[in-house]
Amino acid sequence: MDLYGKDFICTQEWAFEELMAVLDLAAEMKRDRFSERWAGILKHRTFFMFFYNPSVRTRQSFECAATELGGHAQFLEPRAMRLKTAKAAGETVEDAAKVMSRYACGIGIRILEDQVPYYGAGDEMLREYAYWADIPIVNMADDRFHPCQGLADVMGWAEWYGGGPGQPDYGALRGRNFLLTWASGALARSWCSVQEALLIASRFGMNVTVARPEGYDLDPQVYEWTRQNCAAHGATFRTTDDPLEGYRGAHIVYSRNWVTPQAYQDGVFQKQAEIEKAMAYQGWTTTAERMALTDNAIFTHPMPVDRGSEVTDEVASGPRSAIYDIAENRLHVQKAVMALTMGGADL
Amino acid sequence: MDLYGKDFICTQEWAFEELMAVLDLAAEMKRDRFSERWAGILKHRTFFMFFYNPSVRTRQSFECAATELGGHAQFLEPRAMRLKTAKAAGETVEDAAKVMSRYACGIGIRILEDQVPYYGAGDEMLREYAYWADIPIVNMADDRFHPCQGLADVMGWAEWYGGGPGQPDYGALRGRNFLLTWASGALARSWCSVQEALLIASRFGMNVTVARPEGYDLDPQVYEWTRQNCAAHGATFRTTDDPLEGYRGAHIVYSRNWVTPQAYQDGVFQKQAEIEKAMAYQGWTTTAERMALTDNAIFTHPMPVDRGSEVTDEVASGPRSAIYDIAENRLHVQKAVMALTMGGADL
Amino acid sequence: MDLYGKDFICTQEWAFEELMAVLDLAAEMKRDRFSERWAGILKHRTFFMFFYNPSVRTRQSFECAATELGGHAQFLEPRAMRLKTAKAAGETVEDAAKVMSRYACGIGIRILEDQVPYYGAGDEMLREYAYWADIPIVNMADDRFHPCQGLADVMGWAEWYGGGPGQPDYGALRGRNFLLTWASGALARSWCSVQEALLIASRFGMNVTVARPEGYDLDPQVYEWTRQNCAAHGATFRTTDDPLEGYRGAHIVYSRNWVTPQAYQDGVFQKQAEIEKAMAYQGWTTTAERMALTDNAIFTHPMPVDRGSEVTDEVASGPRSAIYDIAENRLHVQKAVMALTMGGADL
Repeated sequence: MDLYGKDFICTQEWAFEELMAVLDLAAEMKRDRFSERWAGILKHRTFFMFFYNPSVRTRQSFECAATELGGHAQFLEPRAMRLKTAKAAGETVEDAAKVMSRYACGIGIRILEDQVPYYGAGDEMLREYAYWADIPIVNMADDRFHPCQGLADVMGWAEWYGGGPGQPDYGALRGRNFLLTWASGALARSWCSVQEALLIASRFGMNVTVARPEGYDLDPQVYEWTRQNCAAHGATFRTTDDPLEGYRGAHIVYSRNWVTPQAYQDGVFQKQAEIEKAMAYQGWTTTAERMALTDNAIFTHPMPVDRGSEVTDEVASGPRSAIYDIAENRLHVQKAVMALTMGGADL
Repeated sequence: MDLYGKDFICTQEWAFEELMAVLDLAAEMKRDRFSERWAGILKHRTFFMFFYNPSVRTRQSFECAATELGGHAQFLEPRAMRLKTAKAAGETVEDAAKVMSRYACGIGIRILEDQVPYYGAGDEMLREYAYWADIPIVNMADDRFHPCQGLADVMGWAEWYGGGPGQPDYGALRGRNFLLTWASGALARSWCSVQEALLIASRFGMNVTVARPEGYDLDPQVYEWTRQNCAAHGATFRTTDDPLEGYRGAHIVYSRNWVTPQAYQDGVFQKQAEIEKAMAYQGWTTTAERMALTDNAIFTHPMPVDRGSEVTDEVASGPRSAIYDIAENRLHVQKAVMALTMGGADL
Repeated sequence: MDLYGKDFICTQEWAFEELMAVLDLAAEMKRDRFSERWAGILKHRTFFMFFYNPSVRTRQSFECAATELGGHAQFLEPRAMRLKTAKAAGETVEDAAKVMSRYACGIGIRILEDQVPYYGAGDEMLREYAYWADIPIVNMADDRFHPCQGLADVMGWAEWYGGGPGQPDYGALRGRNFLLTWASGALARSWCSVQEALLIASRFGMNVTVARPEGYDLDPQVYEWTRQNCAAHGATFRTTDDPLEGYRGAHIVYSRNWVTPQAYQDGVFQKQAEIEKAMAYQGWTTTAERMALTDNAIFTHPMPVDRGSEVTDEVASGPRSAIYDIAENRLHVQKAVMALTMGGADL
């Protein structure tokens, strides 16, 4: 299997064996993090990171990943650049991508809702870069997908239901019950992480439940893919507006705030209006009482956690919380993605 | 020839053989980019990059260059620093330069028109740094000169009239016809790239034509040096206000917007006024029709290209466009400059 | 002695032998700066630098230090992050520190007066990070302490009274007279560097004099520690409001502007009011005339120097000025601190 040169924009677009190639390498890298085997993969190579939106973990973990592969990640923010955007004159994506292909081994891009005029426009921009660039584009979170988060999630779940850190058992996830629940909070959060979670959970054969208030459904295309993924494994997919029901028998609980499909008006993301809408739904918080309804489920979240709203401290910092392991896995899966798509070295 | 410790502020101040030492090494580096021969030149050394003005290509290519030489470039923006400027209290250039000389192997500085009170003040600031620093200063574009762009340009022209990428033939440029033409556009651009292009084209024995509307002449000192450079080769230098004439028989066409000599008033760069002045001159755009008048010329531009104003898409993305090759050469010539002026290693 | 994993927040909290372990290694590193012995200590490891306040020297010297140890320092500014602060929602320190512990080998933090609601709140924040993080926290200057500056200072003094650069003689400092004098200026400067200077000068057995106008005393806890440190060596500690007296017989003169203990009102740092207060005290400037009263003292300052207010050019650039050597020592002591607290390598 040759992943060299391949863009990574959404897990759904990669074959299962391709995802497993990444995940297997990631686990090997986690077990032997500073091995000389990885140190030359991007030796003296440059990876560009474009942050249209700021980030803690994504920046830290990608820059670490490049360093640990022997390369260097450049942290680039469009405010300090002269790229053409919807709002400002500047260089075309064609020109920027063609030149960057001469300098770097890959480009990571992060662009979320509030930087684009309509849902999906961020993802389209990544695809425009991918069209013109001769080097791989990696999605560092756009307004639709967050594939590195999805891989980190499933790796963490498989570690918790497998042999622990660095010892994931992906088969152990099949047939388990996965609850994704909308959560209270005033952060008007993106769809990218939760959509990627639906895709990856269903891809690995889990029964998927989405619990959310009426009016909080996600992208119909993602629902459709999730349904297909589940069907291929004989698993189920359902939605519910009952905040409690999905906890019963769950093995994995994922709670997270997100916005409605009506988040844009006149080409502008309505952050304040979305926060006000969300305020009408209190009590969508993952608590120890609710976790007690599950089949000893683990708690998962892509972070940053809005403690007190999305989940209580007791659960987030509790013995069944997988959040730090999953955050750590961002590093390992990204190292593996970069090694396979950008590294010339024989692994 | 020993270039170790030498500042690089303008190509005109370096001997021809010194420029050729850089260009020959750059071509070697391009042919064998990730050779171990370069990897130790700046090993564990630090290069400081000061960006008073933002930039895409300059930042990317310098940071790549340091990485590929085994070193590390620190991206520094004065807004995040406490350096003394014309407007704010802070540290003197003496103190900053003396301390930086203890930490780094070299300093790159970029400062353009809009950050200084009069034409030439940016270049003077570089020379003040060069006066106090014990390590080389590299001009990453100031308000007068852009020497790394000049070297990348001539390397690209010599590749196109030579054996292709990595195979420049500098002798093949002698006696060819070089057109630098002012171009339409609303960007109020700097003189630095086009002035450096005049100096370097004439230095390599080309006949130089500057086409521009009345009132758009460049620095008289640069015209004088260009005239002397041409005379030394028996080549010609002329200016014209005819937008078409210079294309006839040209081998290289360089079109670019720039400001008038009256761009400053009361110590402030008048960007908006310059844009309005430029708007009076439409049709100074390089088109396929105009290129058809040439002797099968290549199209050259330092990027970012203002497509539709400076040049049509047909030409900029056409088969005789050298723009991406030249952008790539920024990396190679900068690696060579840094290796020779900052690297202790025997090459 | 095992310093691996130890936080470095204030020199007073480290044993004398621990400080000497750092200083001895720093001198060795200075004598043989690019030795392969140091190049693998942080190989492919990441060090996070958090700058709540901007800085020239601290950023440059820490990033250089990481590079020279084979690692990489990530430059992080909270404005580009989503961390919880007194003013904004975001991630808790617990979550941020726990995740960063998975990625990096250490975290440096800089946070000064103007970013916090009361004196000491910055230092408390560092200790909160230290509480949650599994990796060492290094103080890159907070509102109370600046331990790396303190080590660089004493290393520089010991070089000047010892065998010169890289040849410090710490015993030669014992019993010498150290003058810290408040200085004129409009910069409302932090207490961190001068407090660390009192602690380190007294720790190495010097007689300490603080000269300042009435109302400009520093942290009583720091005075108390200084008194204890002096007493342990049979040395003296005194304060005076006479701007001249302390120069008589001094061996080291340190002049620096700082704010009063009344710098906060209603949770806000009153920079402008402090500048106005300071304006009432002119003539607290170190001059050649005053230096002539000393016992051929050296001049020391943590930089940036406010020339003309804190000290005249004649002294700051004079033959007894240690300022550039001390600034250079920042690099060496930080390399040594990082190597000992974060490096797994056997030194």
